[in-house]
Amino acid sequence: MNVKDVTTEIAHLEEWLGGYGKDPEGGVTRLLYTKEWVEGQKALENLMQEDGLTTRYDEIGNLFGRFEGTTYKDETILTGSHVDTVKNGGKLDGAFGILAGILAIRLLKAKHGQPLRNLEVVSFAEEEGSRFPYAFWGSKNFVGIAKKEDVVDITDFNDVPFVEAMREAGFNFRDESKAFRNDLKGFVEIHIEQGNVLEKEGKDIGVVHSIVGQRRFTIEVKGVANHAGTTPMGYRKDALFAASQMINNVISRAKEYGDPLVATVGKIEVKPNTVNVVPGEALFTLDVRHTEKEMLVKFTEELTAIIKRVAAESGVEISIDMWMDEDPIPMNKQIVETIEKQAKENGFNYKMMHSGAGHDSQIIAPVVPTAMIFVPSREGISHNPLEYTSPEQLAVGVQALTSSLYALAYTE
Amino acid sequence: MNVKDVTTEIAHLEEWLGGYGKDPEGGVTRLLYTKEWVEGQKALENLMQEDGLTTRYDEIGNLFGRFEGTTYKDETILTGSHVDTVKNGGKLDGAFGILAGILAIRLLKAKHGQPLRNLEVVSFAEEEGSRFPYAFWGSKNFVGIAKKEDVVDITDFNDVPFVEAMREAGFNFRDESKAFRNDLKGFVEIHIEQGNVLEKEGKDIGVVHSIVGQRRFTIEVKGVANHAGTTPMGYRKDALFAASQMINNVISRAKEYGDPLVATVGKIEVKPNTVNVVPGEALFTLDVRHTEKEMLVKFTEELTAIIKRVAAESGVEISIDMWMDEDPIPMNKQIVETIEKQAKENGFNYKMMHSGAGHDSQIIAPVVPTAMIFVPSREGISHNPLEYTSPEQLAVGVQALTSSLYALAYTE
Repeated sequence: MNVKDVTTEIAHLEEWLGGYGKDPEGGVTRLLYTKEWVEGQKALENLMQEDGLTTRYDEIGNLFGRFEGTTYKDETILTGSHVDTVKNGGKLDGAFGILAGILAIRLLKAKHGQPLRNLEVVSFAEEEGSRFPYAFWGSKNFVGIAKKEDVVDITDFNDVPFVEAMREAGFNFRDESKAFRNDLKGFVEIHIEQGNVLEKEGKDIGVVHSIVGQRRFTIEVKGVANHAGTTPMGYRKDALFAASQMINNVISRAKEYGDPLVATVGKIEVKPNTVNVVPGEALFTLDVRHTEKEMLVKFTEELTAIIKRVAAESGVEISIDMWMDEDPIPMNKQIVETIEKQAKENGFNYKMMHSGAGHDSQIIAPVVPTAMIFVPSREGISHNPLEYTSPEQLAVGVQALTSSLYALAYTE
Repeated sequence: MNVKDVTTEIAHLEEWLGGYGKDPEGGVTRLLYTKEWVEGQKALENLMQEDGLTTRYDEIGNLFGRFEGTTYKDETILTGSHVDTVKNGGKLDGAFGILAGILAIRLLKAKHGQPLRNLEVVSFAEEEGSRFPYAFWGSKNFVGIAKKEDVVDITDFNDVPFVEAMREAGFNFRDESKAFRNDLKGFVEIHIEQGNVLEKEGKDIGVVHSIVGQRRFTIEVKGVANHAGTTPMGYRKDALFAASQMINNVISRAKEYGDPLVATVGKIEVKPNTVNVVPGEALFTLDVRHTEKEMLVKFTEELTAIIKRVAAESGVEISIDMWMDEDPIPMNKQIVETIEKQAKENGFNYKMMHSGAGHDSQIIAPVVPTAMIFVPSREGISHNPLEYTSPEQLAVGVQALTSSLYALAYTE
């Protein structure tokens, strides 16, 4: 299979899998344990079997395709990603990582035959948290940290209980007493970037050395609602004016920090939100990410100080609620170096980078040596039918993955 | 009737009229041409008749009570306000001006008998624009500027046509060919301040020398929606960050101008308004008021320049739509002086001030010498069941009105 064939084949596979859950409202909707999801996993199982892989599902519905090694039979190199999508998502988020894994193993088998170590590709059941209020169900079960109690009481947006949906799809809770498998020597996940850095910098692939930590906050500002005409400026406690100063100062400070810090005020709600009333209340969210925990903590201190200072100057009351605090996850140094070395040898125009979004890899990295490869996302668009990476760019990704898996599974 | 009697009587009248349209959800809801409105006007008509006034309705439902003068039979001094309320409004907005007018004429009649000029009190049909999308229906018909075509196609929130509601209440369009009456020599409207200036400064009454002009704007900001984690700060066109800078700069500049300028951003909407997406669009409103047109124009130029500068620096696109432009309305100098003189002679602790809110007086001022008297509003609250002015403060207002009407109708 030459490069042209890889390009054609990955484009074909992408279209083919995108047919499972094709949404009449646009894009792909393949939510956990739905009919579309069951059919998608089944189709992937068939594809793996046609490629000669030994397939199996775990209890909750993660699908594995295995190519036995010749020598180190208790050592396995794993690749793959998640099969579920968001509502009206793209064809690539998650899916590309599975399809690239299948194709990489096919290419390796054709060229080199059996590996020294076992090679496996996984199609994780769920990562997005789009049907039920629980994310990473697939990888968290895989590594043994998802608990029955986390989901036993949750339902989807149509009030279908999680447990009922799981059983109807033919799956069940895992045996929580069973230990995590100990044969895994490496995990490589390839994924679209979902950002615009590779595109802006004209790079073929990204070699991911860490996944950012995230802190999310809700800030409530309480002022006094007043008549917009009869209340002199000096007699006001304008919650929106105070919030706008807070946003302005926090985001400006984040810009001064620069990469890899990002800070976003994505949501704002004002009360009563009427043209002729001075706002009495404002609520906004703040999403802060960085690859180093120390910097996340430091920026949190700064933003808290900024918000408190503005509140004091404006005479408004505030509450700051940090409702998410996820640590940054470094990727495994050896696996990162292996990927980088292969990228160099193949002459790819690569960039060492971090991931600003969450991925299955962050769940697996604490227990298995893990790293990621990114391919460019056109305009950084993702979670949207307009999500796009050209077949040529996808093919470069497949080649980078193939070379890395070769180094990990075929060499001493 | 001594001061104590006036205090008791105005408190009683306020409670009594507030019973017409008492809303189970709180406050008073007496919307134009509803059953509550018809009953309210009827009750006021009876009250006027009990006081010996000659009553009549005009075609559209403005109610007048007349006390004939002895000498200048073609000269009339008018007082009053509007009978309608907002949904879940207070007992005083509008109502107080009618009740104070009735009580003032009762006091004058008891003490001085017939005036030289005719004295009339009016209960205007509508001012708030709360049932139909048309405000000042009462006073605009009174002075002859409301047109049939303005309302012939409008309906209320239950799709009841304006014309149907009007006819069911027993009223109809005025004869638009008829000229405005030419006997009016003065109009004095007493109203609650609906602001917190008198309360903050510990004043009994306000003598209103002008009503502010207003300009209202909608500003749309277009940036680019991006992933909050994967888009570096330098690659963003954040519509909310740009909007917050605009709000910050415009409101800060308004504070520098100081009284009587007020500028308010009361409403903001962001898209997609999600915690983990950089906002691609933001829309906010701007309400600017001043007593001088020149300053309104000047501030409009400044705010436009500020918004354009921020947009250029941020790389976002903007549109600025000015959808309201009402000129300031000065009150009549002689009437203002008369009110001030009476306030002084009565020893009231008064403040010369402007009105930041709109009133029937602004419709009447261009054709009849007009001025207003304000009484304090507790915490500036209005359009709300919590609207409150103490009976003692209301009584001072009634006395100020009574003295002014005496000077205008009983003296040469």
